Order: sequence, then C-alpha cells, then structure tokens
Amino acid sequence: MDKINLIQKANEIRELYDYNKILEFNDHMMTLVKVENRTLDFHIHPDSDEIFWVIEGKMQVEFENGLKDLSIGEMIKVPKGTKHRPVCKTSCTCLLIEKKDTLTPDNTGGTYKS
Amino acid sequence: MDKINLIQKANEIRELYDYNKILEFNDHMMTLVKVENRTLDFHIHPDSDEIFWVIEGKMQVEFENGLKDLSIGEMIKVPKGTKHRPVCKTSCTCLLIEKKDTLTPDNTGGTYKS
Repeated sequence: MDKINLIQKANEIRELYDYNKILEFNDHMMTLVKVENRTLDFHIHPDSDEIFWVIEGKMQVEFENGLKDLSIGEMIKVPKGTKHRPVCKTSCTCLLIEKKDTLTPDNTGGTYKS
Repeated sequence: MDKINLIQKANEIRELYDYNKILEFNDHMMTLVKVENRTLDFHIHPDSDEIFWVIEGKMQVEFENGLKDLSIGEMIKVPKGTKHRPVCKTSCTCLLIEKKDTLTPDNTGGTYKS
C-alpha cells in the first residue's frame, strides 16, 4: 500500500501520448497521460463513464454541442454513451478514470498499450 | 455536464465532518470531507477498495502494521477487506473514492448522510 503523488508521477513522464497506469481500484483504472497539440477522433465509451482531470496545463473536451474548457485542477465526467473527444491545443497532463478495458488503441489515437 | 473544481468545492464546505457528494461515476461516488482532530474506529469495507486523496492539509491512514502519512496531493488505496482508519490530527480536506453505499454512519463516526 504505497501512497501516490500525482505531480511526481506527472514529472516522471518522459514520452508524450504514453498512457501511464497509475492505480487500479475495484474494476477501474486511473491513467495519466501527457499530451501536446493533439485532437482525437470523436468516439463513445458504451460501457463506462469517463473522467478527465487536468493535473497540469489546460485542455478541452468537445461534445456534439460544443467545447468545454478545462484548466488545471478541473475535472469533467463524460457519461457513458456520450460522443466526445479530447482537444489538446497546448501542453496538458490529464488523469483519466474509467472502467478497465475502456481505453483501446482505437480510441486513443493508437498509443494505448493494454 | 458541468466541470468540477475541487479546490472551489473545498472552499465551499462550511461544516466539518459533512460528507459532500461531489461526483457519481459508474457505480462509484467521489465524496469530499473536511476534518479536524478526529480519529475514526478501525473498520473494513468488504466490497470496495477505498481511495483517500488529500486536497488540503495532511492526514494519516492507520493500518494494522502502522501509520501512513499523506500530504496535500497524495493519495492511497485501501484494498477492500483491509482493516484501517483515518487519523486526522490537524485540519484536512480529503477526497474519498469508493463504490456507492460503502460509506455509512457506522464507518464515518456517525456523520454520513445517505
């Protein structure tokens, strides 16, 4: 039972677009990813809500009806079945929380490794 | 789909020991609680892992083999079935993540309202 410091984990990330598995709890996973200048395709997670939580920088999440701006310390829940995509115009480190097996290469621009 | 700022939510808390439901996702709940000078009884959650995440201040989580110190920005997972208790000697705001219906008046010093 080791404690986790997210800022330290963010500082240890060396590769953009790598999905770093931080903590598994119940049937869920926390994943930390550093992104710069990347917009994914619109997609849906049919079986899981998804939380985006900005640890460093800022980003946007785009829905069919528009963009939500997220700054450091802010989070948003994308309800399961909701069409969305992350839009990262500058540098951002984001914590993702969702059920395990929700992230795939298809919905992460090809960079997720299971 | 409103975004959530945890620091702002923490600043809005007016009552110590109130369990503020922040966000429901899948079958889980995020709960924010401000505590000062309180140690709960040892207890077990048989059906859910539990995450303690320190948003302000510092606290400890005690296990059968000793205490873990947690400072601001640090989190720890208590695996389901593990005997533990939170130990808050000074002021602390903590985010809890666990399956819904895990927190009860019995395991929260009587202050949890379902």
